[in-house]
Amino acid sequence: MEGVDYLIDERNKAQFDVEAMKVAWAGSRETLEVSDRMAKLVANDPAFEKFTRPMLGRKELFKNTLKKAAYAWKLIVNLRLSEEEAKCLRFYIDEPAYTDLHWGMFIPAIEGQGTEEQKQKWLPLAQKMQIIGCYAQTELGHGSNVQGLETTATFDPQTDEFVLHSPTLTSSKWWPGGLGKVSTHAVIYARLIVNGQFHGVHGFIVQLRSLEDHSPLPGITVGDIGLKFGNGAYNTMDNGVLRFDHVRIPRNQMLMRVLQVTKEGKIKQSDVPRQLIYGTMVYVRQTIVADASKALSRAVCIATRYSAVRRQFGSRNGGPETQVIDYKTQQSRLFPLLASAYAFRFVGEWLKWLYMDVKQRLAANDFSTLPEAHACTAGLKSLTTTATADGIEECRKLCGGHGYLVSSGLPELFAVYIPACTYEGDNVVLLLQVARFLVKTVSELGYKKPVGTTGYMGRAADLLQNNCAIQTAGEWLNPDAVVEAFEARAARMAVSCGQRLAKFENPEEGFAELASDLVEASVAHCQLIVVSKFIEKLQQEIPGKGVKESLEVLCYVYALFLVHKHQGDFLATGYLTPKQASLANDQLRTLYSKVRPNAIALVDAFNYTDHYLGSILGRYDGNVYPKLYEAAWADPLNDSDVADGFHQYVQPILKQKLHSAKL
Amino acid sequence: MEGVDYLIDERNKAQFDVEAMKVAWAGSRETLEVSDRMAKLVANDPAFEKFTRPMLGRKELFKNTLKKAAYAWKLIVNLRLSEEEAKCLRFYIDEPAYTDLHWGMFIPAIEGQGTEEQKQKWLPLAQKMQIIGCYAQTELGHGSNVQGLETTATFDPQTDEFVLHSPTLTSSKWWPGGLGKVSTHAVIYARLIVNGQFHGVHGFIVQLRSLEDHSPLPGITVGDIGLKFGNGAYNTMDNGVLRFDHVRIPRNQMLMRVLQVTKEGKIKQSDVPRQLIYGTMVYVRQTIVADASKALSRAVCIATRYSAVRRQFGSRNGGPETQVIDYKTQQSRLFPLLASAYAFRFVGEWLKWLYMDVKQRLAANDFSTLPEAHACTAGLKSLTTTATADGIEECRKLCGGHGYLVSSGLPELFAVYIPACTYEGDNVVLLLQVARFLVKTVSELGYKKPVGTTGYMGRAADLLQNNCAIQTAGEWLNPDAVVEAFEARAARMAVSCGQRLAKFENPEEGFAELASDLVEASVAHCQLIVVSKFIEKLQQEIPGKGVKESLEVLCYVYALFLVHKHQGDFLATGYLTPKQASLANDQLRTLYSKVRPNAIALVDAFNYTDHYLGSILGRYDGNVYPKLYEAAWADPLNDSDVADGFHQYVQPILKQKLHSAKL
Repeated sequence: MEGVDYLIDERNKAQFDVEAMKVAWAGSRETLEVSDRMAKLVANDPAFEKFTRPMLGRKELFKNTLKKAAYAWKLIVNLRLSEEEAKCLRFYIDEPAYTDLHWGMFIPAIEGQGTEEQKQKWLPLAQKMQIIGCYAQTELGHGSNVQGLETTATFDPQTDEFVLHSPTLTSSKWWPGGLGKVSTHAVIYARLIVNGQFHGVHGFIVQLRSLEDHSPLPGITVGDIGLKFGNGAYNTMDNGVLRFDHVRIPRNQMLMRVLQVTKEGKIKQSDVPRQLIYGTMVYVRQTIVADASKALSRAVCIATRYSAVRRQFGSRNGGPETQVIDYKTQQSRLFPLLASAYAFRFVGEWLKWLYMDVKQRLAANDFSTLPEAHACTAGLKSLTTTATADGIEECRKLCGGHGYLVSSGLPELFAVYIPACTYEGDNVVLLLQVARFLVKTVSELGYKKPVGTTGYMGRAADLLQNNCAIQTAGEWLNPDAVVEAFEARAARMAVSCGQRLAKFENPEEGFAELASDLVEASVAHCQLIVVSKFIEKLQQEIPGKGVKESLEVLCYVYALFLVHKHQGDFLATGYLTPKQASLANDQLRTLYSKVRPNAIALVDAFNYTDHYLGSILGRYDGNVYPKLYEAAWADPLNDSDVADGFHQYVQPILKQKLHSAKL
Repeated sequence: MEGVDYLIDERNKAQFDVEAMKVAWAGSRETLEVSDRMAKLVANDPAFEKFTRPMLGRKELFKNTLKKAAYAWKLIVNLRLSEEEAKCLRFYIDEPAYTDLHWGMFIPAIEGQGTEEQKQKWLPLAQKMQIIGCYAQTELGHGSNVQGLETTATFDPQTDEFVLHSPTLTSSKWWPGGLGKVSTHAVIYARLIVNGQFHGVHGFIVQLRSLEDHSPLPGITVGDIGLKFGNGAYNTMDNGVLRFDHVRIPRNQMLMRVLQVTKEGKIKQSDVPRQLIYGTMVYVRQTIVADASKALSRAVCIATRYSAVRRQFGSRNGGPETQVIDYKTQQSRLFPLLASAYAFRFVGEWLKWLYMDVKQRLAANDFSTLPEAHACTAGLKSLTTTATADGIEECRKLCGGHGYLVSSGLPELFAVYIPACTYEGDNVVLLLQVARFLVKTVSELGYKKPVGTTGYMGRAADLLQNNCAIQTAGEWLNPDAVVEAFEARAARMAVSCGQRLAKFENPEEGFAELASDLVEASVAHCQLIVVSKFIEKLQQEIPGKGVKESLEVLCYVYALFLVHKHQGDFLATGYLTPKQASLANDQLRTLYSKVRPNAIALVDAFNYTDHYLGSILGRYDGNVYPKLYEAAWADPLNDSDVADGFHQYVQPILKQKLHSAKL
């Protein structure tokens, strides 16, 4: 069977240069080269095998993860991998581990919030992994609302120490990854109390475990919070619980870049602008958007390949049945997700640029674009993670019954992905933040020019007045017409919310009452950003035969799918007539036919190895059924013909001897 | 802590008689009594403990299920439980097991498709569980399309036997529950071949395993297909794979109620109408709709109670934060699901009546309502299972981060529920069947009076012409106006599909091309059914103070939520103006405020025990945080302070001795 490619006919249909598309997807030839090298390094090393993962009990699973993490670190050191390569390697290992938080949250927290002195002391230790750290913010009773945290850090001027304490059960730190069993240190967020006065929530570096025998230090209760969604999934991670009983740390372990406590107990605000913290949020959320495109593209790759392999109905004269990818119902669910994966990839790329821009401006003390950048990343984080979580489950359904098997890879992908909708800002809470910014922008239109992604609001008067002029399905392929439709919808919804809010005496009451409408207006604004960034991308040069043309098709699939899905908005705001909405839908169906021959090549362009996909249904060679059959026999239940428990619990039933059976 | 009720204030707010609502939910006082007795029987018996289930490895998990099934069967026999009681008991045990298929599919298949002689021989054996059976239809390469099955049953007149054979890998039976390790027998669906001629797909009773030592019989390869979605979930079930190598069975083991093969190899059609098979489908799908309301109500109960316990933001002067159930964004996601649970409960009740009606008509050789009843149940199966699967995941998100813990009960509920979207007819395939029926109904309007749930099509001319007359939000509480809106939308979408199909030269090509629009028309039709059956229910007497009034609020929440969600349909068909759609949304917000004080009592009325809910977040007493904290320590990772694997895989990193570590 080796070397056979059951999808070769599909690959031959492609109308574009797949290698060039791989570069377009990766962002550059260099990124593709690194990514490809790291992916193959992982895929070819048996140490990173992951097929048996879902069958392991919790302890064995966790131990296995510790082993892989150590092996990976050894590789990184031995091969002298760059930071970018190391990150890429960890990504392809595809197993949540304490190292994610150590590198992704603990070190950045010190970098961002520590003084020069603190950075000099702690970063070298962390970078050599002589200490392992995590990021402990959320508590058992407190998630989104950081100001509601209960853990206290009380300054004791007698000893020049802070006393960390968990005054209630709900103040127990809860969820931090890597906290439960591995971390020796943590950045702890706690209420700073000096001279009996509360001075806001701040970060403190706290040692949790002995560096000798790893036992928890006195006053510290720490452990794992228990099983999470999915078979393997996030159960490889020791999300932890932590309580302090008057634990003392030296004063210089409070992260003091922004605010200092002197040994006399004086509070000193540094001249470092507090806005810096928003720069970090822009960074983190930009990576979440990039991850969304990876997770969604992975699910889409599996579903697309299997849709070409799988056949159902439509056999003529005993011939083979129809490939399910040829059904319009399958296309109308699958292709918008394929298009979304590309759309999120490109908006993620743009966000990377936005972050660099914000960073440069912050360095020059220019805070003018920060609120807009913050709203934009908050909204895109929410939009892309929600769509990705839903999209993975939709891909599973698109694989029919077999998508329910763990060996399809989709259940684990779903279980491991969905926390992204909740962490770093609950998706609905984030959309309300966006709404607040939109409403503010609308209310200031008379005297303040909106910037960046809200620039279109400056033309609100026109957008409110002029309706869509489209008269044929073909006109829906005009980029200006499409962008204007999304602008008009977003502007009209935001302005309408503003007008309705103005009728409330108490603006906060109005905001609470109209919250779901405000969320819808935010979604409209965020979708406009994704659509317009995709269209902007296509205005750049994109090398490779047929590459730009194929991306154009996907761009319009994405946009027109949204027009159809949200036609209620477009019609209710009066921008489109029912006829125009219907023309968009007609054009969408035509576009599906253009995606069809390129579908397999478009997912091949993600350049995912079979190891990374971790899916029998999504195998590159399409050799699905023999491999599914083979994999079944690996289940422990098949160790023996007669199952363990048969003699005690089934035989007595069959033999009508249950009355004397021990149960 | 014993006896404390943290939700007592919520319960005191209720404006209706909860006990009377329990009766309304259960259907009758008698059903409630049985259900309550069985639920408590299970909850109070430690044999049915299920908390540790997700922590067990596959073998241990499966053995545990065998034990529970045997224990339950012993209870059923010893307590002489009625069939209804036994079914109810199994439901509250809440663990998929081979017995589900034995009682739910194997026995009904013989009852429905066997001759009198066959029933006399096999049913007593099955009813005493001297044999255990399953239902083997789907194959590795064949799901929805029964006519595409590849397994063959070839008649050999020499020996008066059928030879069962799996000619290809893709013909391996795949998925049947109970097949893998337990069943001694199966009803096998195979292509009947007599004298080299194919005579359709039929059922055959085949013994799979020795009744002495349970080993597979010669020519039979059987096993488990491996892990499925979720921690415990459906992994308690031995979904199986089965291959035949020329296995012989006596001729009289073909189920011959409808079609007979004589020993001479003659085919005889009996006078039993083939339509009987549709009667069975109506039955099975009606139970799936009933199960949807149970699964959704369970998730809603958990999310509603935890939304009242959980507080986030909005603290004033250091007081407690706001209960999340008080946020409009939470209400606008949660309350429509609460309303849907009730809506599905009542449409399920009506379907039970429909099945009885169909059964009586079939007995009298009246097939006139069968196509309509078939379309109606297919559509409602699709609608309710899709909404329930999505609704469970939405409830999980509504619980914030903690919903991701297995101890929330929601991950397992989701994992165990989602197959309902695929089995007994893929939900999209079913909607296409409904569409086919709708289009046919439309095309015959001139000369054939539509019946039952399509009766409104008889007024299509009016429904197409007259637009909505509503002018105030209050008018959206008029039952006639609401039903007419749903009728007009459904009729207009069906007629529009019909008109567009007529433009295609080849109707099948048109049907394929417009498939997604047809699916949308089907959804509109099915939503109309649910809305109108809810409204009809409210026209009956419903005893108990405030019960009917509370249900009325839920009914309009359900209907107006759909109007808002699908406002694109209502606007595109021209039935509603944007202003009217906006009034519906205003009314919806007002209704949420009316649901709020009753929310906890409305989920209490489901009468679920804490055992059945299986959720710390959904505990009746609201004592969530101490119990979450307590449960964490039960994870095996917390067996020791220092995790297994630390010394091999973490210590060498910390001590910078990785180069010499064995990995």
